[in-house]
Amino acid sequence: MAKDKLEDNIIYVGNKPVMNYVLAAVTQFNDGQKDITIKARGRAISRAVDTAEVVRNRFMQDVKVKDIKIGTEELEGEKGDKINVSSIEIFLNRSD
Amino acid sequence: MAKDKLEDNIIYVGNKPVMNYVLAAVTQFNDGQKDITIKARGRAISRAVDTAEVVRNRFMQDVKVKDIKIGTEELEGEKGDKINVSSIEIFLNRSD
Repeated sequence: MAKDKLEDNIIYVGNKPVMNYVLAAVTQFNDGQKDITIKARGRAISRAVDTAEVVRNRFMQDVKVKDIKIGTEELEGEKGDKINVSSIEIFLNRSD
Repeated sequence: MAKDKLEDNIIYVGNKPVMNYVLAAVTQFNDGQKDITIKARGRAISRAVDTAEVVRNRFMQDVKVKDIKIGTEELEGEKGDKINVSSIEIFLNRSD
């Protein structure tokens, strides 16, 4: 049954070490997931890129970057003010 | 004569404030440049995304993200060791 339809195929990258997110991605691919999206905002964006690169270069050479999107999200600041934060989505695909 | 062939259309994003790079991009587009590439490595990657987003959202709504590429570059560390650093290239296009 279409394992690639699982809904847990989004990995939100935050402030933990890169290897945590790499492990999450590798585990999901090994479970049969074909598509994984790595998402991050603000300063975690570079860590999201690191995650994708480490997965591809060190663990799964058959994983490709299918698409990358950037955007801006409006968050509410501490005083109820609006803050714009950049975001990234990296779409990884493993088709074998 | 083909202004879009100018070779100064790469903006390297480092540790300066985002607005420095935004200004560089806006200036080049205003000088007639059609394609600009924003490049960054390591932690500056999130600043590169900020640069692209601020250019598009606040200054030039007709600028589109044409493509985004990520990669890994091998740098030499302080002790002559090899360090892998993630990189990003954001290709912006303004066609009017």
